[in-house]
Amino acid sequence: MPSAPHAEKHFLGSETVRDVVIGMADGLTVPFALAAGLSAAVSSTQVIVTAGLAEIAAGAIAMGLGGYLAARTDQEHYASEQRREAWEVDNMRAAEIAEVRDIFAGYGLAGASLDAVVTALASDKKRWVDFMMRFELGLEEPDPKRAPISAATIAVSYLVGGLIPLLPYMLAGNLRSALLYSVIFTGIALAAFGAVKGRLTGINPFKSAFQTLLVGGLAAGAAFYLAHLFS
Amino acid sequence: MPSAPHAEKHFLGSETVRDVVIGMADGLTVPFALAAGLSAAVSSTQVIVTAGLAEIAAGAIAMGLGGYLAARTDQEHYASEQRREAWEVDNMRAAEIAEVRDIFAGYGLAGASLDAVVTALASDKKRWVDFMMRFELGLEEPDPKRAPISAATIAVSYLVGGLIPLLPYMLAGNLRSALLYSVIFTGIALAAFGAVKGRLTGINPFKSAFQTLLVGGLAAGAAFYLAHLFS
Repeated sequence: MPSAPHAEKHFLGSETVRDVVIGMADGLTVPFALAAGLSAAVSSTQVIVTAGLAEIAAGAIAMGLGGYLAARTDQEHYASEQRREAWEVDNMRAAEIAEVRDIFAGYGLAGASLDAVVTALASDKKRWVDFMMRFELGLEEPDPKRAPISAATIAVSYLVGGLIPLLPYMLAGNLRSALLYSVIFTGIALAAFGAVKGRLTGINPFKSAFQTLLVGGLAAGAAFYLAHLFS
Repeated sequence: MPSAPHAEKHFLGSETVRDVVIGMADGLTVPFALAAGLSAAVSSTQVIVTAGLAEIAAGAIAMGLGGYLAARTDQEHYASEQRREAWEVDNMRAAEIAEVRDIFAGYGLAGASLDAVVTALASDKKRWVDFMMRFELGLEEPDPKRAPISAATIAVSYLVGGLIPLLPYMLAGNLRSALLYSVIFTGIALAAFGAVKGRLTGINPFKSAFQTLLVGGLAAGAAFYLAHLFS
């Protein structure tokens, strides 16, 4: 049974945690799978390191800028929906009032209390638009400072995640031991990442660790098999 | 000025469109950047094709399963918050009633009309919990069938996006022309993808096409530079 119900909510939805999870989930998985896959096809650790670094650079930039553009799109989407609702409140007043009535009628209000709510809400245009944004469209106003922070968080998380599987290929003397250490270190990192992610999102940490390991393993297995086929 | 305001809303938020965008944005960018980057470091198209296919397999699986787990997490998060709200409505009735009062007081309701709304909402437990889920927490009930569809949509979009930059390396006679055709075809695909994405999300299609091209170009440029450094 929940004891301190509201305390954790904000953290669960923290956008920074979400950005770290987005970047690190792919950062730990894809460069690891690529390097493991290439080890089935090429004999030089230098080619694997080169491909891995190129992938990390490409992935960090693509995901970071993708996050930046997504945050900007959210802002623009919110602003355009807000203009649209404001326009509707001004120009289609009867239809908007009917929408508010429908929403509250759906929650069981009727008669004088329904009239009172609708009249109170419709008496202040700003509040009315806010209500429609949040309730009809389910949109919350995005923080305008999010976009660059989100981009940097995702990119750095991808970079950090991607360097873990790649370091053994940079340091180990031969391909076989590089692959072995990469599998071990990345396995530990994936399980730890999954457990922490599970704890933050309210899922059983063991289950989450197992899922994260499974995704990494399947991705690396598929990459290995495909690279082996084409080598 | 908007003429048919509500018709487009649903499509804008379509989860399938979002999944295609998630998969294809990275699928067009990362394998393209990896292949272009490797062309600065290795002389064999076969190594590039092998690395590219391994990356596409790893990326499609990692992003697809990542989308699957994210959809499952959303479902579990919704269910656990719903249990929590139901528990609160049963066991912390006074506090929950105060929360409802605060919400509507914030929209300008007072006195008898505020009492009427609160009483009506609190008279039906299911409706009350639904209201708190949607309004206090901003959560909508996820479709339980989403997770596998989301996974497949993201994975296939990544695969389709990733094969466009890679096909020239499979078909062209030499590395130089493969790189050239890959840049041309992927540039066209990125611009078209950006324009369609812009149209669907309500952003200027030219601006969106330019942004998508820029992300692909920066990722490929960084991968090329890094691979060149390490070759």
